Amino acid sequence: MAHYDLLVIGTGPAGQKAAVQAAKLGKKVGIIERKEMVGGVCIHTGTIPSKSLREAVLFLSGFRQRNLYGAGYRVKAHITIEDLAFRANHVIANEIDIVKNQMLRNRVDMIYGKASFADTHRLRIEGSTGAAEHTADFIVIAVGTVPARPPEVPFDDESIIDTDGILRLKRIPDSLTIVGGGVIGTEYASILAALGVPVTLIDKRPRLLEFVDEEIIAALQTQMREIGVTLYHDEEVLAIEKEADHHINVCLKQAKPIHTNTLMYAVGREGATRDLNLESIGLTPDQRGRLFVNAHFQTSIPHIYAAGDVIGFPALASTSMQQGRHASCHAFGVSDRTDTDLLPFGIYAIPEISMVGKNEEELAREDVPYGVGIARYREIARGQLIGDETGMLKLLFHRQSRELLGVHAIGEGATELIHIGQAVMAFKGRLEYFIDTVFNYPTLAECYKVAALDGINRLPRPWAQPS
Amino acid sequence: MAHYDLLVIGTGPAGQKAAVQAAKLGKKVGIIERKEMVGGVCIHTGTIPSKSLREAVLFLSGFRQRNLYGAGYRVKAHITIEDLAFRANHVIANEIDIVKNQMLRNRVDMIYGKASFADTHRLRIEGSTGAAEHTADFIVIAVGTVPARPPEVPFDDESIIDTDGILRLKRIPDSLTIVGGGVIGTEYASILAALGVPVTLIDKRPRLLEFVDEEIIAALQTQMREIGVTLYHDEEVLAIEKEADHHINVCLKQAKPIHTNTLMYAVGREGATRDLNLESIGLTPDQRGRLFVNAHFQTSIPHIYAAGDVIGFPALASTSMQQGRHASCHAFGVSDRTDTDLLPFGIYAIPEISMVGKNEEELAREDVPYGVGIARYREIARGQLIGDETGMLKLLFHRQSRELLGVHAIGEGATELIHIGQAVMAFKGRLEYFIDTVFNYPTLAECYKVAALDGINRLPRPWAQPS
Repeated sequence: MAHYDLLVIGTGPAGQKAAVQAAKLGKKVGIIERKEMVGGVCIHTGTIPSKSLREAVLFLSGFRQRNLYGAGYRVKAHITIEDLAFRANHVIANEIDIVKNQMLRNRVDMIYGKASFADTHRLRIEGSTGAAEHTADFIVIAVGTVPARPPEVPFDDESIIDTDGILRLKRIPDSLTIVGGGVIGTEYASILAALGVPVTLIDKRPRLLEFVDEEIIAALQTQMREIGVTLYHDEEVLAIEKEADHHINVCLKQAKPIHTNTLMYAVGREGATRDLNLESIGLTPDQRGRLFVNAHFQTSIPHIYAAGDVIGFPALASTSMQQGRHASCHAFGVSDRTDTDLLPFGIYAIPEISMVGKNEEELAREDVPYGVGIARYREIARGQLIGDETGMLKLLFHRQSRELLGVHAIGEGATELIHIGQAVMAFKGRLEYFIDTVFNYPTLAECYKVAALDGINRLPRPWAQPS
Repeated sequence: MAHYDLLVIGTGPAGQKAAVQAAKLGKKVGIIERKEMVGGVCIHTGTIPSKSLREAVLFLSGFRQRNLYGAGYRVKAHITIEDLAFRANHVIANEIDIVKNQMLRNRVDMIYGKASFADTHRLRIEGSTGAAEHTADFIVIAVGTVPARPPEVPFDDESIIDTDGILRLKRIPDSLTIVGGGVIGTEYASILAALGVPVTLIDKRPRLLEFVDEEIIAALQTQMREIGVTLYHDEEVLAIEKEADHHINVCLKQAKPIHTNTLMYAVGREGATRDLNLESIGLTPDQRGRLFVNAHFQTSIPHIYAAGDVIGFPALASTSMQQGRHASCHAFGVSDRTDTDLLPFGIYAIPEISMVGKNEEELAREDVPYGVGIARYREIARGQLIGDETGMLKLLFHRQSRELLGVHAIGEGATELIHIGQAVMAFKGRLEYFIDTVFNYPTLAECYKVAALDGINRLPRPWAQPS
């Protein structure tokens, strides 16, 4: 039994940053982890493993080099799950060390066990060696999510898996059907297709990732089809039937049934709030286990915060970190100046997608007179060097002031590239910034100059500039 | 015989941008190329081939993956010159097309032949089918450079080569000695070493690349040694002796002679001004064929400009483009707002180096009270994912205002990464920008946040922040 200034439940990105922020402010902090291993979904089954898998696939399949060395080029003729898992395990082990060291360095108490609320200031923690209770002035719930597993889907964790199950597969599937075209479904569909697995992706919406720029998604869908993904849009799964010999029938509302030997169910995740005993303190999660919070990440009980995936969209590691940090700052009366209009989005499909600021649909809806400037990777030397012929960068700007309003990118390095535009937007910079700036040659960053020139050349003179 | 608003001599980066800029301003422009192929040293023997070679070596040697898959990992067991040249030839052909199309699109006349001055407004061009003369209001000399070939070096273009000769080698050398530790010598030394060739690099200065941050160079030198480069500093070559059977003896001032079977002489390049008949119009290049210009790139004859490598340091494609563009803008009375304090430098060694703004030595000399913040790639998830354990990003900032003053990076993607800091510096941004900004996870861009937190945590509180 100890008293803390702050107790954090969960050691994923949101929990880590909440804990460290409070510790840096001189507070006494404890962080509770249910599993023996810290890091949350991010390190163990989500972000890090999927990105490791992606890097391994890109390398071992020779994917990045196909435009330069021919489509038949592979580093390994037969890629195994062990090849793919090797890198992930290496990175996971490293990341766990980094997180543990960070907690140690900042004198955050690591408490292992399953937390539940005894009252609004008291947590009961059941560990492998017994139970304890600790109290705190403030509590941050950063428990993350688990995959939704609806009862009508006959999961067997071998041929019918959830999104956490992909790295536990014993072999690379001969074919894969993915139900759900959200971020996770899209990422895995493209990664497995790049590996040579025929993939079918079924989504009930008219296109993938509706929050992303339409032109970027059109490019993504084209490229996914080119590497062997079959896309079903506006389609619903009526039933998933498991037959003998690993045959699975997927019955659809409109199209004919699909036959597959592996199915990944990737429709939604649920807040991992079930065991927290929230009802006893009067907190009610929504149907999908998620908690509602205000702009400062407070639940309806002001000293109890929630941050990270457990509060829903966008559920990205990057935003979760910021939320955790903001929660702690708010709890201890420190200001936090993050401009949430400039949150970037990164989608680690093949190809990579990233964006910051507004998209065309938003600008049109808000009646902003905007211009568009586009650069294609194949127009610049670096694009040629890396063999990415399909990448593009799109700038949206105000037609009169030429202030930069949005950046949308698809292609290698898109998630890095976006931060140049993000900085310019943060300082209310205009398109001219890119024209007046010298970029290293050859870099993908040159796309900004080419896109700015393209955008400005579409305007009436005297704004014409060389491209 | 035609009259132009602008004639440009040379189709490298400086010449291209000078020509296109003038054309966009509605001027009549001609561009003269001595060889049948456009693009200059950049495309044919310099930037593009060396960067292509670098990409091919990184991929085929499995270099980037060694930390993840073990040091013995190679994509190809026996890499040939053909493997290496394949990518370069592909990229060169593409880049030539891009430049030609750009000239065509902007209605720039392509004139093939060897240019020389008849008078200050008149050029004589000797082509394969005869000679012609053209006049112009303004002329831009963008002829680039050729490798220096001092008479005491017994070049044979097989075992004793200049820096243009590396891609013409018939096979990968068993060992390579490079004389000259400038940018080109350093890049090739690291690239060939990554391929597994034992390399010896001899330089007369106490360290490589004296204009680069000392800590970054220390890291570069350590990593070059780790991959098999032997560095001789403060050393001079007294004689290069060719013996039978491709044995070469290199006699040094201090150390014992070196025996090698291939030697690359990489000490300096000379302005390719010899055939321009400059003396007839009263322009005098320096001993190394380079032209002096003022801040607007005018020679001592105001309507004759010089831009690009022919004017000397920094002789980078990126800066050459800006110079060519600035020259045209100045000639035709258009303002050009490029902030030359924010020119980035990119060195495509293995590892890559980049920087923008001031370095520590400059700040110390100017008595600026500066702080330092450092992030190592191995501290962030993306560094783990790509297996770059040695990369680092270093931020220099004003201790009182915390304005960002310089960014120095070494490691994969450094030349891209630097542009985020460049943008923040252009808008006089402070360290807090990086702390308040959400970066995509996992990206190398997160280094900015980690470095900013490191920098601010070294200052007295209340600036302490989580790291």
